Amino acid sequence: MDLQNELVKRATMFNTYWQRYLQLKKPTILYEASQHLPFAGGKRIRPFLAMVSCESISGDSQKALPFAAGLELMHNFTLVHDDIMDHSLLRRNLPAVHIKFGEPAAILAGDLLFAKSFEAILDTSVDFPTFKQLQQDFIDCVISICEGQLLDIEFELRKTVTEKEYLDMISKKTGALFELTGKGGALIGGGNPLEVTALQTYGMSLGLAFQIWDDYLDMSSKATTLGKDIGNDIRNGKKTLIAVHSLAHATGKHKKMLDDIFGNHRASEHDVMKVYDLFRELGSVEYAQQRAAYYVNQAKDALSVLKPSEAKELLYQLIEYTVQREK
Amino acid sequence: MDLQNELVKRATMFNTYWQRYLQLKKPTILYEASQHLPFAGGKRIRPFLAMVSCESISGDSQKALPFAAGLELMHNFTLVHDDIMDHSLLRRNLPAVHIKFGEPAAILAGDLLFAKSFEAILDTSVDFPTFKQLQQDFIDCVISICEGQLLDIEFELRKTVTEKEYLDMISKKTGALFELTGKGGALIGGGNPLEVTALQTYGMSLGLAFQIWDDYLDMSSKATTLGKDIGNDIRNGKKTLIAVHSLAHATGKHKKMLDDIFGNHRASEHDVMKVYDLFRELGSVEYAQQRAAYYVNQAKDALSVLKPSEAKELLYQLIEYTVQREK
Repeated sequence: MDLQNELVKRATMFNTYWQRYLQLKKPTILYEASQHLPFAGGKRIRPFLAMVSCESISGDSQKALPFAAGLELMHNFTLVHDDIMDHSLLRRNLPAVHIKFGEPAAILAGDLLFAKSFEAILDTSVDFPTFKQLQQDFIDCVISICEGQLLDIEFELRKTVTEKEYLDMISKKTGALFELTGKGGALIGGGNPLEVTALQTYGMSLGLAFQIWDDYLDMSSKATTLGKDIGNDIRNGKKTLIAVHSLAHATGKHKKMLDDIFGNHRASEHDVMKVYDLFRELGSVEYAQQRAAYYVNQAKDALSVLKPSEAKELLYQLIEYTVQREK
Repeated sequence: MDLQNELVKRATMFNTYWQRYLQLKKPTILYEASQHLPFAGGKRIRPFLAMVSCESISGDSQKALPFAAGLELMHNFTLVHDDIMDHSLLRRNLPAVHIKFGEPAAILAGDLLFAKSFEAILDTSVDFPTFKQLQQDFIDCVISICEGQLLDIEFELRKTVTEKEYLDMISKKTGALFELTGKGGALIGGGNPLEVTALQTYGMSLGLAFQIWDDYLDMSSKATTLGKDIGNDIRNGKKTLIAVHSLAHATGKHKKMLDDIFGNHRASEHDVMKVYDLFRELGSVEYAQQRAAYYVNQAKDALSVLKPSEAKELLYQLIEYTVQREK
């Protein structure tokens, strides 16, 4: 099975399915604002993981569709609200929801997507005890994401952040949703406790590798490849793993350079490039690569308890892809 | 049974119960922001209605506690987000959450309360089909509230609003939650379809009477009694039932006066008083009283299918109280 083909195939299946939760109604502006991000495309990696996790246990991926819709609706709700808090202008190369529809409609559109995510979960065909587990995990995950987002905002205002604090933050902001995705897929597929834990661990490890690789990409590639501005992260003092590593290891004039430039909103282009180079010199970019590789291996190890299947193969390919992608 | 005693007794019982959903955790600011409104007091009319509705069917009010907690958490979530959208400074005589904790923490605190509301619903002891009904109704209600809030914001920008549009807006923004409260209490109490519909109708009618009476109080009492500023509503062009009625019935120089002053942010104190007097002269204040009385009767009529009980008596007293309260 080819991962790229399967990603496209399942994204198409998923997009057809979840439209039922995104119908246009009145007042139109509320529903258009709610549709804006969901209909802006995306690889649907979380729905893919939910479907393939379920399939790796039960042979059936369709059963996970409502749950996958719930995850993706919830993911989109958090993006809409995060963009307001982060004053982001763009998302998926389109104006952010609050830029296009105004802040009140954006807050309400996020709330609506959140409400709809519970409607999708409710459509899952499982018994009551499994449903209760699924919904409690879903709630715990949303709360983790809220905590992670608050820590992320708080970290930007701080001079330093430890690696432990950074990992705690990304495990909440990014890891928790992938963890829920793997675990939920396994629960819906009727997995035994060992299988459920395996896919839960796989999900969390994938999420951490995914986020660290995102940090790495931001710092390693040319701005044009990512459509992002490396300078902004340095000027905002964004606590990526690379920055955290450099802040912990810089001494003397390097430390002074970071003190002066990192988190300085008025830093010049030239200064930003000096920090960009320093991140390499201190081995921080390479360190991030190594840490991503560590979580890739952790994810692969977790899969060992699953019986052989095409779905299992896809899970191996997915984790490899996570640290090979260039955007 | 004395309504005021029962309100206090049940509010105390409720406050003890729902604390479990509001425990302080880290990051502290997120949880403090989430506790701010819930711990600021309030009469807990919605939890009261949920408990008494359940009791009127089953004789037991305790069974409705988790559902009541879900309603009140959800109600508080919408207040936190509404205050951001409406740029409100105060709520329950305290600084609004976004004023005290900043907007990002307020958005996240609202999201957290929303997530917790589903945790509370999940704790309800009912069978799976009843649970599904309860959660779907809960979701539909949140969506109605989002729609109502968007319409309310939109109405302020419009020159006129019809009475039908006004009723649609308040039935969503205020009525839907009371409707859900009555219906949910009946469902949890094991009510038959007639009883469930009766308490659903009672709830909606109570909500409409409650909101219209709020509008009436804003315009009839001295500013000091309500702790609100009548002038603001007139200057903001707030489409209360009273304003809607006057806008529809004013002609000639009265129409011109409304055109000039109503919705004019720079209107003088003297001009505001002229509109205040006009609302009386056109019979709009009296009309709002009549409409509130209409919904009170509708609510009472709905109760006729319930068997006699102390809880039923409390429901009669509650609807009377709605249009007797002075704040």
